[in-house]
Amino acid sequence: MAENSTRTAYTADTLLAVTVRVFNERGYDGTSMEDLSRAAGISKSSIYHHVRGKEELLRLAVGRALDALFAILEEPAAVTGRPVDRLEHVVRRTAEVLIDELPYVTLLLRVRGNTATEEWALERRRDFDHRVAELVKAAAAEGELRPDVEPRLATRLLFGMINSIAEWYRPGSRTADGVAEAVVHLAFDGLRAEP
Amino acid sequence: MAENSTRTAYTADTLLAVTVRVFNERGYDGTSMEDLSRAAGISKSSIYHHVRGKEELLRLAVGRALDALFAILEEPAAVTGRPVDRLEHVVRRTAEVLIDELPYVTLLLRVRGNTATEEWALERRRDFDHRVAELVKAAAAEGELRPDVEPRLATRLLFGMINSIAEWYRPGSRTADGVAEAVVHLAFDGLRAEP
Repeated sequence: MAENSTRTAYTADTLLAVTVRVFNERGYDGTSMEDLSRAAGISKSSIYHHVRGKEELLRLAVGRALDALFAILEEPAAVTGRPVDRLEHVVRRTAEVLIDELPYVTLLLRVRGNTATEEWALERRRDFDHRVAELVKAAAAEGELRPDVEPRLATRLLFGMINSIAEWYRPGSRTADGVAEAVVHLAFDGLRAEP
Repeated sequence: MAENSTRTAYTADTLLAVTVRVFNERGYDGTSMEDLSRAAGISKSSIYHHVRGKEELLRLAVGRALDALFAILEEPAAVTGRPVDRLEHVVRRTAEVLIDELPYVTLLLRVRGNTATEEWALERRRDFDHRVAELVKAAAAEGELRPDVEPRLATRLLFGMINSIAEWYRPGSRTADGVAEAVVHLAFDGLRAEP
């Protein structure tokens, strides 16, 4: 019994990993259950044993990325301290999570919203962005951020920089915390050397 | 005669503007000459009077973006002075050109390289990125950039931030130089207020 549920859990995790890879390669719309069955090396009926269909797989995959991102906002360093320090923590951890969960976050960033699940994912992603924007605003209100970059624009540029990592990062090339550290240096202190 | 060539030039420019809009909406692969004819309100044979086909329209469109980007590198402030100041100029102007030529640069950023023209565009884009990377390296070598962000990573993050503007910028929302100024502040001096 225990052995069987371990095997089931293993299959479900593997299936999700394969699914995300195929979705990222072919696009969600361009992927059939047949494609997933072939890529995972299991029958379609075995897949249906785990999930109701393609859309549930998408929900599980982007859900994993979203859960990891929202968990950041509950970390102690994200909820206590000066807003600018909380923001710095969230920016660093968002870059780290993006790299640690690269295929899942990549898929999330490509969601465009044609199905109910995609709408839901977009909505939760907007919600996360909004929570970070609130932190930027709070830090600006405290005078902790430079006054000549408008908070909403600062938030967009921060996410632009962080999300772009998904386009070039390849596992093994650099460590997640090395990249995250560079993002924090650039974002908060700028590239210019101290005079 | 003069009137006729004015009209021809007008038609070619309009055709290009319509083409870029349709390519950005449907994707280059998903656009037919029929789609372009309908969107431009002229016959296919009129289009063939201007260009040989879809791929030439793509070349003209991304060529316009590439020419505007490469022209930045020839501007006086990009070729003389300290590397960090030249880099700052290039970063500011790249953001401005992205906004001024938004549909053309958006199309360029989406090119994936399935045809000879797409390969050519990707190659020129890599070439531009490389020229900027050289400037980052020169500024780092002069000690003008902070030593704890590796130049190649700094270049990627800079382009990540700048290119992301194409995803959210809507004409009329902000001015090109307002956004470019914010990019420069964030990139060179960071968001943190002076202590």
